[in-house]
Amino acid sequence: MGIAGATGYTGVELLRLLARHPGARLSAAMGGPGAPPRSVAALKRVWDAPVDGLDLDILASQSEAVFLALPDHAAAEIAPPLVARGKRVFDLSGAFRLRDASLRKRWYPQTPEPSQPVVYGLTERNRDRLRDSTLVACAGCYPTAAILALQPLLEAKLLVTDGAPLIIDAKSGVSGAGKTPTERTHFSECHGSLSAYGVFNHRHAAEIEQELGARVTFVPHLLPIDRGILETIYATLQHGVDEAAIRATLHAAYDGSPFVRLTGSDLPEIKHVVHTNFCDIGWKLNADTRQLVMVVCIDNLVKGAAGQAVQNFNVAFGFDETAGLN
Amino acid sequence: MGIAGATGYTGVELLRLLARHPGARLSAAMGGPGAPPRSVAALKRVWDAPVDGLDLDILASQSEAVFLALPDHAAAEIAPPLVARGKRVFDLSGAFRLRDASLRKRWYPQTPEPSQPVVYGLTERNRDRLRDSTLVACAGCYPTAAILALQPLLEAKLLVTDGAPLIIDAKSGVSGAGKTPTERTHFSECHGSLSAYGVFNHRHAAEIEQELGARVTFVPHLLPIDRGILETIYATLQHGVDEAAIRATLHAAYDGSPFVRLTGSDLPEIKHVVHTNFCDIGWKLNADTRQLVMVVCIDNLVKGAAGQAVQNFNVAFGFDETAGLN
Amino acid sequence: MGIAGATGYTGVELLRLLARHPGARLSAAMGGPGAPPRSVAALKRVWDAPVDGLDLDILASQSEAVFLALPDHAAAEIAPPLVARGKRVFDLSGAFRLRDASLRKRWYPQTPEPSQPVVYGLTERNRDRLRDSTLVACAGCYPTAAILALQPLLEAKLLVTDGAPLIIDAKSGVSGAGKTPTERTHFSECHGSLSAYGVFNHRHAAEIEQELGARVTFVPHLLPIDRGILETIYATLQHGVDEAAIRATLHAAYDGSPFVRLTGSDLPEIKHVVHTNFCDIGWKLNADTRQLVMVVCIDNLVKGAAGQAVQNFNVAFGFDETAGLN
Amino acid sequence: MGIAGATGYTGVELLRLLARHPGARLSAAMGGPGAPPRSVAALKRVWDAPVDGLDLDILASQSEAVFLALPDHAAAEIAPPLVARGKRVFDLSGAFRLRDASLRKRWYPQTPEPSQPVVYGLTERNRDRLRDSTLVACAGCYPTAAILALQPLLEAKLLVTDGAPLIIDAKSGVSGAGKTPTERTHFSECHGSLSAYGVFNHRHAAEIEQELGARVTFVPHLLPIDRGILETIYATLQHGVDEAAIRATLHAAYDGSPFVRLTGSDLPEIKHVVHTNFCDIGWKLNADTRQLVMVVCIDNLVKGAAGQAVQNFNVAFGFDETAGLN
Repeated sequence: MGIAGATGYTGVELLRLLARHPGARLSAAMGGPGAPPRSVAALKRVWDAPVDGLDLDILASQSEAVFLALPDHAAAEIAPPLVARGKRVFDLSGAFRLRDASLRKRWYPQTPEPSQPVVYGLTERNRDRLRDSTLVACAGCYPTAAILALQPLLEAKLLVTDGAPLIIDAKSGVSGAGKTPTERTHFSECHGSLSAYGVFNHRHAAEIEQELGARVTFVPHLLPIDRGILETIYATLQHGVDEAAIRATLHAAYDGSPFVRLTGSDLPEIKHVVHTNFCDIGWKLNADTRQLVMVVCIDNLVKGAAGQAVQNFNVAFGFDETAGLN
Repeated sequence: MGIAGATGYTGVELLRLLARHPGARLSAAMGGPGAPPRSVAALKRVWDAPVDGLDLDILASQSEAVFLALPDHAAAEIAPPLVARGKRVFDLSGAFRLRDASLRKRWYPQTPEPSQPVVYGLTERNRDRLRDSTLVACAGCYPTAAILALQPLLEAKLLVTDGAPLIIDAKSGVSGAGKTPTERTHFSECHGSLSAYGVFNHRHAAEIEQELGARVTFVPHLLPIDRGILETIYATLQHGVDEAAIRATLHAAYDGSPFVRLTGSDLPEIKHVVHTNFCDIGWKLNADTRQLVMVVCIDNLVKGAAGQAVQNFNVAFGFDETAGLN
Repeated sequence: MGIAGATGYTGVELLRLLARHPGARLSAAMGGPGAPPRSVAALKRVWDAPVDGLDLDILASQSEAVFLALPDHAAAEIAPPLVARGKRVFDLSGAFRLRDASLRKRWYPQTPEPSQPVVYGLTERNRDRLRDSTLVACAGCYPTAAILALQPLLEAKLLVTDGAPLIIDAKSGVSGAGKTPTERTHFSECHGSLSAYGVFNHRHAAEIEQELGARVTFVPHLLPIDRGILETIYATLQHGVDEAAIRATLHAAYDGSPFVRLTGSDLPEIKHVVHTNFCDIGWKLNADTRQLVMVVCIDNLVKGAAGQAVQNFNVAFGFDETAGLN
Repeated sequence: MGIAGATGYTGVELLRLLARHPGARLSAAMGGPGAPPRSVAALKRVWDAPVDGLDLDILASQSEAVFLALPDHAAAEIAPPLVARGKRVFDLSGAFRLRDASLRKRWYPQTPEPSQPVVYGLTERNRDRLRDSTLVACAGCYPTAAILALQPLLEAKLLVTDGAPLIIDAKSGVSGAGKTPTERTHFSECHGSLSAYGVFNHRHAAEIEQELGARVTFVPHLLPIDRGILETIYATLQHGVDEAAIRATLHAAYDGSPFVRLTGSDLPEIKHVVHTNFCDIGWKLNADTRQLVMVVCIDNLVKGAAGQAVQNFNVAFGFDETAGLN
């Protein structure tokens, strides 16, 4: 296995997970294009080799599977030649997630038309296709939580989808914004505060709508914590749908999934999922107004990024789905 | 002026504000029923007198206006005799906010039937009635933000109210839960986390619905910050309503209000309102789906409690509305 | 293996570590004396069995090794009968750490005179004795950091110890204060603040002085974070001691220790050790004034408690020292 | 009054204070050199005029007193011409704090040799000289806390100063590092962490030593909070000095100072001073080892910067020392 982009928050998390994977050996950890070799102090005794500068030839020659934890444009450039050399690529960026060419052009203009089928890497929803994948576009952090919660209910036609859009009020820790310092992610701007951003203008809305086949109103907020996502989802139930139907549908969808925990009316909290690959889903409904409220939590760096990439890798290569993730 | 309940978070904030009010003199600061006298270390050089034990006779004899920063049940008991003695009472608890007897019985079972008219103390919406008030039920923290944002738009009939309820996704700092240590407000449970609570079961929903005359789905969350509330509000616009109509309606409602700041599409952040009496309101809309998203911020201890009580007092006694609040 | 006291912060951390230990099987997880059985929501899919009420007979019958994550007085009561039944006990409380009877009486008055030798469980300093241990008094969180930094330098006589005491300015996350809500650990009291406590009156000072054989001035502070300890240590160098001597002595002490990372003049940060069993040690010195400043970081719940207990267990039972701790 | 540099954290705090000063009118608020005019969203309704680009002529023509909240090098350049025009200048930067030319050259190489006497602007220690000042070098944040605590005790010769240096273990909120985003002040790097920096290499050590006339070992740490400083100070008492002597000396020094609160053995916390101009000082001593521990708290943006500048201005212009600071 090899990693390109091992020095960002997602890359370091991935390095930490892969360095102790019980079944596969990490042979190369490289930075992004143009980044000099460096050692990652926080990883001493975990990964003592330096993180090398990016070299596609070396990366390809040492690895059967390559993980890309790069900015979208860099992944868009590097993934196709790696696939062309027969590597199986797990891309953590957004570059290849959108299937519709016009949407992809809007949100990821540097992405070329994929020459081979891309598998959308939300493990629980796509295990079969992952087994034969060459290029896996690992799901985005916000979409992972929203889709895991809503997709089974929409497939079972339990929710109203005409009329008003589904509402996803999302809150994320700041590590989701990456490692580059900005005014928005400056400590003094975030601490003790909360703000909304990207309203009606966030590419994860397109990704969620693609997978759900339904319109959503998606409002992300920047939480004053480092890691973790909580999404509060509002939907209207079809007539006659009760709590038992919701419960049964979700259990049918996830009882065989080791990383989805259904918490019912005991709503999940971010604290219980950070530093794990779990996705916790809880719900409450009001029979009177037919309103359903779902609360979903993940760690954006694990189930929302590095952990899910490893989970996808495990399924793709036939390892136990939980290998290296406990 | 006198304060009963001057040692909780709201009471201390009130003490701090009233001790430096330019037009009125604070003559008595007392604790809650049964609480021993104490000095508040953090207020040294601000209020050097001790906070006495609660004595209704002394309180009534020294004060024309009395502020109650007490638990609901204590306020329910103490407010009526003070009013009977001719005092003007500003109650920061929820005891007298609900007008409907059955709702009041459900949420505030200790509250007696009020013998005199109660004025709902959301200053901007009720200035005229405050001038003649005897008992002011100062608005709750969550309702203050929600009502200030929605009421003008509902009165102007710009929003759809049949079909789905209005959605209020609210996030509050932990001081809103008061000063008594609990498992929920233990530092290690809140830090780095986020959780929803009181879903479909919070008395502030009844208060909001009373004032708005519309159904709401209200989901509060406990933010890992000390003070501040941000509410994200979702509504569907009536056909033909555009941004100009929203903007004009809100400006007409608040251009004369010194503490409401309209920020338009530059959405407000908690950081900009903490330690102030401001309510900041911003909004964005999607013409395609007719969805309106509003973001509202206040400091729960100031505009959501102590500051608004002082603002109500200022209007009631003919002071400048901003006296002691800058 | 069995755990008594598996529901506090330390106990849950221990449960998490032992449930996935590669070489030993966790057979019983029990609460503290009088605590009812419960399931720990955050541990679903990690430890699905309930946490039972404490039953010494069952605990003893199912476990060769027993971990106690109990309050001091409960551990003082329970450890001796378990040892008497031939169990090897790893006590995470302070009950048996102090060897001097008068100090033990002052700080842990419920502790009986131990009938068998107690091994002080700071792994790196005591590997040999751990192999034959019956009762291990796992080192306290603050002492772990202080002793690992100072003991090699004191043994090599590099520091001045007559005249002024060594100074240990310690800062700890709030989880170190345990799970019981108190005014001191209430979120709104800690967030955005910092305070010192226990000055000249903290039992960890006695523990540190016992192991170092030198006087210390120890001032702990409550940091507004959940987990992690950073200690800043001030000492005066003996004449002629330079950086090379400090460096060589520390490397000689720890180059064979998998969990001690020496960072030299690149001073450690709490962020790099949380959720790990590492102890990071850095230092700088001023040749002019002969002042040495050391900075040491650990995670108080891992290397300062549960992780070190597992590390002690590994050495005691002949497992690889890092088993279950990566 | 005029401000240059009104958009940084210190500048905004200063603008907020001066805009409501009861005795003086703020006539000009300008940014730093080269900064374009802008409005400060968070100050709407507090200061509605834009913050203009810096123009020395306009600034000088509109203001008798000028506050500089600029980077050191900009203040070094701008202060002398303003003084030459007869303006009274309150410089919040470090440019003119050090009197020794060689130290000034090391730490503030752009500062020219002052042509007029500079008054060190730590109000409580220098009231007389402030009255006739032309250029006031307002004290640094860390030095303010350290000097207020130690100077009276050193002047009274209660502390040992030969042998080991005085030790100042300082912890500061991140706003002390300014508004420019950096890797060090990125939210995800600070949150949940703590780190030391500038060990044996911080210019505030030189400033403290200048005022105290004694050697100090000064270690600052970056706290995961926005504002506030706590310093823990370690000193050895001269033989025969007891708590009564410490207490009497500090009370003699500060009983007439409205912003110094002596808390004795009830050690101060950051929470109690943020958003105020107070400096809280507490202490404990160990008669056995003759060790004195002092704990001092200020808000770095108020007493450590903007508030103290206003306090200096009040004394310089004959206003009540507390004007605009309550």
